[in-house]
Amino acid sequence: MKILGIDPGLQKTGWGIIEADGNALHYIACGLIKTDADLSLAERLCQIDEGMQAVLNLHKPDEAAIEETFMNNNAASAIKLGAARGVAMVVPARAGIMVHEYAANLIKKSIVGNGHATKDQMEMMVRTLIPAVGRGLGADEADAIAIAICHVHHASSRNRFAQIMAGGVR
Amino acid sequence: MKILGIDPGLQKTGWGIIEADGNALHYIACGLIKTDADLSLAERLCQIDEGMQAVLNLHKPDEAAIEETFMNNNAASAIKLGAARGVAMVVPARAGIMVHEYAANLIKKSIVGNGHATKDQMEMMVRTLIPAVGRGLGADEADAIAIAICHVHHASSRNRFAQIMAGGVR
Repeated sequence: MKILGIDPGLQKTGWGIIEADGNALHYIACGLIKTDADLSLAERLCQIDEGMQAVLNLHKPDEAAIEETFMNNNAASAIKLGAARGVAMVVPARAGIMVHEYAANLIKKSIVGNGHATKDQMEMMVRTLIPAVGRGLGADEADAIAIAICHVHHASSRNRFAQIMAGGVR
Repeated sequence: MKILGIDPGLQKTGWGIIEADGNALHYIACGLIKTDADLSLAERLCQIDEGMQAVLNLHKPDEAAIEETFMNNNAASAIKLGAARGVAMVVPARAGIMVHEYAANLIKKSIVGNGHATKDQMEMMVRTLIPAVGRGLGADEADAIAIAICHVHHASSRNRFAQIMAGGVR
């Protein structure tokens, strides 16, 4: 199963694709969609829309996961982050791909075991879990891959629970 | 020239289309895109995406205008409003239609002459400016049409100014 993780932002949206094969995780690809600050908001959202569509066309993920946005005290920037996030998530959704949302501290907890892990700790664990990711990983791509890993962990728990409830596994 | 006005929201997004023929304004259509609160955010954004795309396919506007979001103190709801607004504006933008943004008090000022006009005053003026709109107009559709009217006023001023600067009109 191929998972797309998304770390949304108006300036740059990180994305990462991993393949989950049972408990084994394989790195497929990651990247950054940057927008041009000189353009209008609508045009920048278009760049995110096009970038996400290109990722989807190339990698054809089965499921997607995105960070639940943290509470930002600045409503004006929350509106802009919300716009970027909305566009980034509607692109897989309109292709029929389920987009799951995970809170930032849940993502940290499921990668490092601590809801208040630092960015450095997160990057280190992402590289440990998926060595093929390599050293030159940017922070936004690392976050996107962490979100995808978080989804794999929770999806496998959900599936196991559903099987037990259905009497398929004891 | 056909103008699409958009009053975005996650629960309901109002839209209105008017035709500007010089100074004369003609009502074409308006409506409401409602989303199902039981669905996930991604699925609700999909409903906005589909609804806006249907409006675009049917009416083929030349330009679009949307309200600049007001400052909301609640960042969580600003993120959701931002998402709805982002999706509503990226749909015309990716079709190559310019999406102009106008502040709420500028819209009120250009319709009623007062940046603090009430909703009732706005609806009354929209009906006065475009009688064909009729009495049964909802508040969100009225706002969407007001945004489109505001754009017509500003676009014609901009064009006149550009013509004067180019020496075409004295």
